[in-house]
Amino acid sequence: MLNERALIEAITAALAPRSGRIARWIGDDAAVVRARPVVVVSTDTMVEQTHFRLEWTAPAAVGHRALAGALSDLAAMGAESGEAYISLGVGGALDADGALELMRGAERLAEQTATTIAGGDVVASPGAFVAVTVVGWSEDEDVLVGRDGARQGDLVGVTGAGLGAGAAGLEILAGRAPSGAGSAELIERYAQPSPRLREGLALAVLGAHAMIDLSDGLASDAALVGEASGALLDIDLDALPLAPGVAEVAAALGLDPASFGASGGEDYELCVCVAPAARAAAQRAVPSLVWIGEVREGRGARFSDAQGERLLHGYEHKLP
Amino acid sequence: MLNERALIEAITAALAPRSGRIARWIGDDAAVVRARPVVVVSTDTMVEQTHFRLEWTAPAAVGHRALAGALSDLAAMGAESGEAYISLGVGGALDADGALELMRGAERLAEQTATTIAGGDVVASPGAFVAVTVVGWSEDEDVLVGRDGARQGDLVGVTGAGLGAGAAGLEILAGRAPSGAGSAELIERYAQPSPRLREGLALAVLGAHAMIDLSDGLASDAALVGEASGALLDIDLDALPLAPGVAEVAAALGLDPASFGASGGEDYELCVCVAPAARAAAQRAVPSLVWIGEVREGRGARFSDAQGERLLHGYEHKLP
Repeated sequence: MLNERALIEAITAALAPRSGRIARWIGDDAAVVRARPVVVVSTDTMVEQTHFRLEWTAPAAVGHRALAGALSDLAAMGAESGEAYISLGVGGALDADGALELMRGAERLAEQTATTIAGGDVVASPGAFVAVTVVGWSEDEDVLVGRDGARQGDLVGVTGAGLGAGAAGLEILAGRAPSGAGSAELIERYAQPSPRLREGLALAVLGAHAMIDLSDGLASDAALVGEASGALLDIDLDALPLAPGVAEVAAALGLDPASFGASGGEDYELCVCVAPAARAAAQRAVPSLVWIGEVREGRGARFSDAQGERLLHGYEHKLP
Repeated sequence: MLNERALIEAITAALAPRSGRIARWIGDDAAVVRARPVVVVSTDTMVEQTHFRLEWTAPAAVGHRALAGALSDLAAMGAESGEAYISLGVGGALDADGALELMRGAERLAEQTATTIAGGDVVASPGAFVAVTVVGWSEDEDVLVGRDGARQGDLVGVTGAGLGAGAAGLEILAGRAPSGAGSAELIERYAQPSPRLREGLALAVLGAHAMIDLSDGLASDAALVGEASGALLDIDLDALPLAPGVAEVAAALGLDPASFGASGGEDYELCVCVAPAARAAAQRAVPSLVWIGEVREGRGARFSDAQGERLLHGYEHKLP
């Protein structure tokens, strides 16, 4: 029988408020926070067996990933992180000790991102789950970037240390690809992704037209931007930055490396569309940006390499 | 296999934004809402088998109750309702059709309470769950009411149409108490509770010192106010307003009616502490208020009737 009150007390002791705007925190009916002009809210839910397995991912990493997934949505809008509210289903392979570790993992990322975990809920459940709602803030609604603003002629860029790392790390954890030099780094990228909050804010401030985070993979996420914008994101697969070791994992799975990098998901990098005139400023603000394509007339996304167009599909990890 | 995209489209078609402050709604990485000065956030999670059974409660009622539970926390702060974000675990006895009905039930309550369901998440899960985060607003932080402000001499009141109704309705649904005249009303009170947003705001504006919603029952919730305030809520069980039919259900369970009404929970009424000078104004603003006790020196809550003090414990419904 879960002792909810004892667990909530232990969790509360492991958390800290980190903003002077927080007037009431955990322990009342609701959190009370002094607002900034615009609130930006996103939700991300991860369920045991569907989105994680505790044999592969320690509870602390599950907490990190769940919070990172939600914060990544704020990054993709160009919002600053504020508060997080975490609902925890305790059960399945997650016991009360694991739940506390999970919240500690989330709290470490909260600390790194100036986020306050300001409330939540702990409930007994047949299987474990984490539902995270993040509240971000912006000074100016017009700075925020949606998916729907890509324009013909825009350049398409991706942030970060190379695509495919998260998916490759998961394949190694699952035993479907062999472990080798660089595997630890790939597994780390899967287990503890970094939401690109700083990059998202910088790109928003300099007037990015459209932005999305690559939670499902460039193949499906770039298509979402194209569909929402009424334009075609024309992506050069040969230009895709792949993380070290991704090519080897793709080869072991019998897949083309660039296709795997584009369809693997789990990377939480940002894909951004900017006017050509903003290219240099964007590169200065976010040195890790790599330019991978251009926005053209059409709708959705198109992927090609030196051999011609390739049809990509979201890569199904089939967790259990 | 759950078709998440089709379900999200059907859910989105069933929802409507109902505030001019909503700049971006469902369909982008995050919702964007123009803020008011103070944000008030609460989370409530309900899990199949732990908090509901679909044999007893139709999906629409599960959606209503989950949103009502979270809105009730806003009511207890004196906040106005704004937006709700709903994470839905689809599985167990809840299929995609049931999930859509659940969201329709939540949307009907959202409409009644001027709330916009502005985002959320739909995931496949071994068992069904609903995690609701509500975002409420206030013009003035000082108007909001916590649990910690009760003062010696304050009067203790409860809102609404009588305690024990929700718990009695659940006992009838579970077959542990016989159905009779008035059962339909009790079941309705369990299945579709009304969060007391108007009452909570009115009591906050006239300077209530402390407030809590009775989700777990007066026995435990009044004690929380007393502990947080460093005072004793001295409650007269003979003054407790009981809903019609509650006494019969309590008798069938072999329980004292007032004790059942105080410990049953599920009512989502408000318990409020106000200065004696505010009594008349509070009664005018909230005609349903019934005065049930006084705040004295001490800590926690004490319950007595004509026979003397009674020790109450939270009543365990033991759902499954």
